[in-house]
Amino acid sequence: MLKNVEISVVTSNENKFRELAELAKEYNIKLRWINLPKVEIQADSLEEIVRNSAIIAYNMIKSPLIMEDSGLFIEALNNFPGPYTNYVRRTIGLEGILKIMQGIENRNAYFMTAICYIDDKIVKVFTGKINGRISYSIRGDKGFGFDPIFIPEGEDRTFGEMNLEEKNKYSHRGKAFKEFVKFYLTYIS
Amino acid sequence: MLKNVEISVVTSNENKFRELAELAKEYNIKLRWINLPKVEIQADSLEEIVRNSAIIAYNMIKSPLIMEDSGLFIEALNNFPGPYTNYVRRTIGLEGILKIMQGIENRNAYFMTAICYIDDKIVKVFTGKINGRISYSIRGDKGFGFDPIFIPEGEDRTFGEMNLEEKNKYSHRGKAFKEFVKFYLTYIS
Repeated sequence: MLKNVEISVVTSNENKFRELAELAKEYNIKLRWINLPKVEIQADSLEEIVRNSAIIAYNMIKSPLIMEDSGLFIEALNNFPGPYTNYVRRTIGLEGILKIMQGIENRNAYFMTAICYIDDKIVKVFTGKINGRISYSIRGDKGFGFDPIFIPEGEDRTFGEMNLEEKNKYSHRGKAFKEFVKFYLTYIS
Repeated sequence: MLKNVEISVVTSNENKFRELAELAKEYNIKLRWINLPKVEIQADSLEEIVRNSAIIAYNMIKSPLIMEDSGLFIEALNNFPGPYTNYVRRTIGLEGILKIMQGIENRNAYFMTAICYIDDKIVKVFTGKINGRISYSIRGDKGFGFDPIFIPEGEDRTFGEMNLEEKNKYSHRGKAFKEFVKFYLTYIS
């Protein structure tokens, strides 16, 4: 029934695209990868950033698309690294975060994804969150980003120690995508 | 001779405007304060960020303007916090930086300002840089931002231990503004 539905995903991160495409399959939604970097503004909220990115991309692409942005928010660090998670990963890295967290007992953190859908009629943002805690050491080499230092609630393993299928059970990206799908299936019917 | 010249400065930071206006006086350049927040993109280079901000602002204001952005770049941390200096100050703070720097011998860092000038004919970016090093502890309570952990080259004191006049001798913002003026006085003559 959704045979002709195709939504573009604008991202230069192939891993992110694959994760979303895998999720979309379940709902018979076909995603098309547009390998372009996002234009992102600086803001404290992912929702604001992704909405802006989607509007800019839509002005170029002019067909229905989704954009995604994710971040790690650490309670004791006033939500750092938040919207700048990728930059922080590339500069101070996992080791940098663990160093800042030395001596800090409150390890609470959450991963959050914001997905923005845009077409010629609507711009809408969906979010997904997974609570957890920062580990005391780097564990596992699966996943990407800060996966090896994040332990989701109810688990003893980090995301870095789980395969993609296991991780997707908890996935903030999956949750946000499901929120989007819930809306979308009603929207197009 | 520059009586009729007026350049807008778009910033929501009154201190920054005052600092620039003070510098401009010496050259008989009149700056007009436009109290609006900057729209900033996420990028690794201040030059790219400030150029984009200036283009966006120019589309609204349609008269010659300058915009400014500054950051602290730490060599051993791959230039972190760089363009996200304000955000990092607000979240992990001075203590966070010192923690990441624990056990790191290379303390090299620089403060940099990028100023973009834009009118209907040209978009041009000017930079000013001050080399120095990260201290091992927080020293002094003067200045703002990361001043209390930055020691400029040729000094033993942090910016936090200097008064404004002493600090201005080293000012990255002042250097960038002088670069702009050097260009501008030729440009309009």
